[in-house]
Amino acid sequence: MKTAKTIQEIRQLRTEMKGSVGFVPTMGFLHAGHISLVQAARSTCEHVIVSIFVNPTQFAPTEDLAAYPRDLEHDLALLKNAGVDLVWLPDNEIMYPEGFQTWVSVENLTKPLEGQYRPEHFRGVTTVVAKLFNMVQPQRAFFGQKDAQQAAVLQRMVLDLNFPIEMVICPIVREPDNLALSSRNTYLTPAERKAGTVLSRSLFAARDLFLKGERRSAALIACMREMIQNEPLAKIQYISCADPLSLQEVDTIEKQALLSMAVYFGKTRLIDNLLLKQVD
Amino acid sequence: MKTAKTIQEIRQLRTEMKGSVGFVPTMGFLHAGHISLVQAARSTCEHVIVSIFVNPTQFAPTEDLAAYPRDLEHDLALLKNAGVDLVWLPDNEIMYPEGFQTWVSVENLTKPLEGQYRPEHFRGVTTVVAKLFNMVQPQRAFFGQKDAQQAAVLQRMVLDLNFPIEMVICPIVREPDNLALSSRNTYLTPAERKAGTVLSRSLFAARDLFLKGERRSAALIACMREMIQNEPLAKIQYISCADPLSLQEVDTIEKQALLSMAVYFGKTRLIDNLLLKQVD
Repeated sequence: MKTAKTIQEIRQLRTEMKGSVGFVPTMGFLHAGHISLVQAARSTCEHVIVSIFVNPTQFAPTEDLAAYPRDLEHDLALLKNAGVDLVWLPDNEIMYPEGFQTWVSVENLTKPLEGQYRPEHFRGVTTVVAKLFNMVQPQRAFFGQKDAQQAAVLQRMVLDLNFPIEMVICPIVREPDNLALSSRNTYLTPAERKAGTVLSRSLFAARDLFLKGERRSAALIACMREMIQNEPLAKIQYISCADPLSLQEVDTIEKQALLSMAVYFGKTRLIDNLLLKQVD
Repeated sequence: MKTAKTIQEIRQLRTEMKGSVGFVPTMGFLHAGHISLVQAARSTCEHVIVSIFVNPTQFAPTEDLAAYPRDLEHDLALLKNAGVDLVWLPDNEIMYPEGFQTWVSVENLTKPLEGQYRPEHFRGVTTVVAKLFNMVQPQRAFFGQKDAQQAAVLQRMVLDLNFPIEMVICPIVREPDNLALSSRNTYLTPAERKAGTVLSRSLFAARDLFLKGERRSAALIACMREMIQNEPLAKIQYISCADPLSLQEVDTIEKQALLSMAVYFGKTRLIDNLLLKQVD
């Protein structure tokens, strides 16, 4: 496994790769969710490139940029073990040199859900991913459904800006007790960690209602809200039942809907989601 | 010479090109300025692709989108004669499909000069060029110094977003009487056409002052302003003496400066510019 730390190195090593390249952009502190993306890339592409970069422009000043967990040595061991060919490790000076002033923005899809509470977040995500795409030039890029809105926003960006890249969105990976994997889970106290399982439990309960025929989004949201409110350590920021394409709230579910939420456990903000699909 | 009218066609024809590709994006109604870009591409690249697309998102509602001159048959004959390999002819539905919502914006460089009077213009330019770059995937792209601010903005975009593309900015091509070539010159009445030569005359007069040692931008601007004001058909929008990198106005010229202007002749808005460089 090779590593690149300069633009010259990534360009050179990329040029030497013949055949298809799969790309997994990450912010490091890797877990089994990231590794599932690597495995998806490994199984469909001749080469796999992973980037590790904690992107400052997607954090608000009030957010956890400085505290964001980092463990490069462990990350590299995991990636080597997963069969990655090249790890791209840019730093802030390479990504945002003096005079940097160009932004990629997706308009409508970034407004609801996470965008309500993190207004600059997606501009940082789309800009850094556009940069990474131009540096790595993959045929396929792999993202997790865990960040459902991010996946929708990036798919829109790729479509609108005509990146010659196939986007592959991979399923959420969960702990045995169904907490969705996240680098931020490391922030949780043992009690918060246990309480966090209420997110997936509430999503699964809403899915059960849906499978029994409930199509009113208010009923599904009420079910989730009640369960989460019964957990004393949980503080709801939002719970949503939205159209998976437009991300706009729906009243009545037609064929499918995205259930999603952001909930605080102490200072730690967790998100989770589940896609409801009517089986014809 | 081939033409492509769908995404599938441009992708397929691009894939078949081995070796370096030079790209000249245009809005059509081609003149010798455009052909000089093609020749520069021809002389340094194995293949040359030209796009023709009158990009609606870089025109304000008050501007001349509908009236913008078009002559595809003549354009194709010129390009074939110039040795172009492939002409990319997308339409509005291909470039801006329903739901389009992603924009590329350059911040500081788009504020002064043209940006003062055309506030949305450069966002349209950078977005369409980013799209065309991703469709055509050239090694080199060729733009004219005639649109000096556009060249600066696009170079910044390429740098900031890490497009793997070398930007080549080619000199202004002028008529025998030194009017800068522009597709919009076709709007001019014979009297306006004659009056339009005051732009280059004023730039050259300012350059003469500079070569004689004048370094105060106010003196150079006063010289240009007086000459243009003496032309009854000319109505000045702005005259600028700016740093060529930041595009910010300068008081005293150090090593170099960009003189530029926008002037109306009747309803036709012409721009011209000249780069002053101190000879050491």
